[in-house]
Amino acid sequence: MEIEKPTLMVDKEKAVRNIRRMLEKVSRSKRVRFRPHFKTHQSVRVGEWFRELGVTATAVSSVDMASYFAKSGWDDITVAILVNPLEINGINRLAKSVNLNLLVDSLETVIFLDRHLREKVKEKVKVWIKIDTAYHRTGMEYDRIENILATAEEIKKSRQLGFQGLLTHSGHAYHARSKGEIRQVYDDTVKKMSQVRQYLNRKGIVDVEISIGDTPTCSVVDAFYGVDEVRCGNFVYYDVMQMVIGSCEEEDIAAALACPVIGCYPQRGEIVIYGGGAHLSKESITDAEGRKLFGLVALPRKDFQGWGQTIKDTYVASLSQEHGIIKTAPGFIRRVNIGDILMVLPVHSCLTANLMKQSTKIF
Amino acid sequence: MEIEKPTLMVDKEKAVRNIRRMLEKVSRSKRVRFRPHFKTHQSVRVGEWFRELGVTATAVSSVDMASYFAKSGWDDITVAILVNPLEINGINRLAKSVNLNLLVDSLETVIFLDRHLREKVKEKVKVWIKIDTAYHRTGMEYDRIENILATAEEIKKSRQLGFQGLLTHSGHAYHARSKGEIRQVYDDTVKKMSQVRQYLNRKGIVDVEISIGDTPTCSVVDAFYGVDEVRCGNFVYYDVMQMVIGSCEEEDIAAALACPVIGCYPQRGEIVIYGGGAHLSKESITDAEGRKLFGLVALPRKDFQGWGQTIKDTYVASLSQEHGIIKTAPGFIRRVNIGDILMVLPVHSCLTANLMKQSTKIF
Repeated sequence: MEIEKPTLMVDKEKAVRNIRRMLEKVSRSKRVRFRPHFKTHQSVRVGEWFRELGVTATAVSSVDMASYFAKSGWDDITVAILVNPLEINGINRLAKSVNLNLLVDSLETVIFLDRHLREKVKEKVKVWIKIDTAYHRTGMEYDRIENILATAEEIKKSRQLGFQGLLTHSGHAYHARSKGEIRQVYDDTVKKMSQVRQYLNRKGIVDVEISIGDTPTCSVVDAFYGVDEVRCGNFVYYDVMQMVIGSCEEEDIAAALACPVIGCYPQRGEIVIYGGGAHLSKESITDAEGRKLFGLVALPRKDFQGWGQTIKDTYVASLSQEHGIIKTAPGFIRRVNIGDILMVLPVHSCLTANLMKQSTKIF
Repeated sequence: MEIEKPTLMVDKEKAVRNIRRMLEKVSRSKRVRFRPHFKTHQSVRVGEWFRELGVTATAVSSVDMASYFAKSGWDDITVAILVNPLEINGINRLAKSVNLNLLVDSLETVIFLDRHLREKVKEKVKVWIKIDTAYHRTGMEYDRIENILATAEEIKKSRQLGFQGLLTHSGHAYHARSKGEIRQVYDDTVKKMSQVRQYLNRKGIVDVEISIGDTPTCSVVDAFYGVDEVRCGNFVYYDVMQMVIGSCEEEDIAAALACPVIGCYPQRGEIVIYGGGAHLSKESITDAEGRKLFGLVALPRKDFQGWGQTIKDTYVASLSQEHGIIKTAPGFIRRVNIGDILMVLPVHSCLTANLMKQSTKIF
């Protein structure tokens, strides 16, 4: 295999192992639907690996991404971002061809959908109410249950819409730094979501599903109690952030950016690679040692069929548009030459894969 | 004009005004070549605005970008990143069709080029030695002049290569927070580069050009003394970072991301837009008030023909892949509804334009 410029290398074996592991956990849990989020890989080919293992539902993060996967035969799709009313034409097109699931967190969007969804959709468009249990990005606050009830009732009144349940994304799990902390997020999320469901049940609204989605909690719990659907996505590749949080091990990371070395500076203990914010994204994380990281570094295996363990005391310390600066120890720098390839394990594989869509190789 | 999803809006009038201003400054300076960096816009159409004003030289940040502009008639191109030996085939293709300028900061790359550049190139490939005056990304340290001399002599020995001069990028100008600090960076850069040139001259190497490139210093100085070429690029659009540094005014910013509002949260003083790290990039800056910003916010003008002044006490406070959270004051939030469009002035227009290549509208 030849690599000339920054290229995202995907290890199929590791990715499929990650998928299998999550799928087995879903199977162990009773009546839980697996709806993996495809915004991480955004690839029909990687989607096939899920399909071959029996997965039929998916979540995506835009109407465009939904259309892309719909074209290759995915027909049960959640657009897992709040409805953008300006894309109603695209939403109507999707609703004609697939079993569509949407997210709302306001009465006004429900009223908008009821008015603007075309009559003859394939079947009722399913609507989830997005709940904010603690992350504070989007969602109705879990303890303002009167608002949630009013919204659920408005959905149920609509001829176009079906009320599917309550959906949350515990993005605050990303602030955790141990498996224990992550498990607490899961327990707290399920507790709050169950409270809302019980309230709706008491008010006569039954068959209310609960959907959760973040990769840290989904990776760490032993089984999915208290929920009906899991929508995690990042786990297919994982990344350095998930490793630092505690939701994966280094050997689970299934994607790395192959970067040509263009400069060596032994006097300052730094190597410069061709591979910057335009390739990795500028996502960073501060690790347990207090280092602000933009990636970890490994050596490629022969013919780029994988990579070795990450190199000690070596990390991407800063990024500009096309350059990455790797800080390292003298022992390593002596072995590296201009024209070599180093593998960078990304901090956030979703953003890296998004940037590298045109330059990805699966091995 | 209709906007349904995150779209980069480019104000041609402002951009051309920015180009004209820089061009006039170049014209005021004696015998200075203007070689604007096109990595900011990466657009043949925007390139035409430069060409119409008489610009014929350009810098780009990759071999691919060079090929893209070469195809539309640009024939004097600097690939303004250190030579990546793995792309020698692409470099040879370019050298056949354009007047090519390359960057090196090591003897080994000079030797590599001498061996691997094909014989029958259009004319000698011009080589600049990259100098590190203080930024510490790439470049030979300006005070290790023996190394620089040896590299220059090696270039001059080659039949394939022409020694063009000394090139630097004062990226540390981005740490400045006032026009005075930026001017100091310029003065210091020119002083160090001139020292190196004088040394080479004394050693018998004459006709040594000096090329500088960062937007902050190029924006702030009154004229380009002491240099032969300026390669700034960001100034065509500018951005919030340049404004915070002190290299432009708000009204110079010529690109903004139109983002649909998908959530309103008056109780926490926040608005959520469809527009995240996948659109703006995750570049941030801490402003004089200590706020970590991912963008500033303005209202669109009628039919998206521009935007108003940025809204007081309102800024993009965090980004995930597709979402942006805007922190704002109660007075503004009351005027905003789901389905509205807000304009986000990006922190780093180069990275935003790179992400939005497929979704840019010029007005």
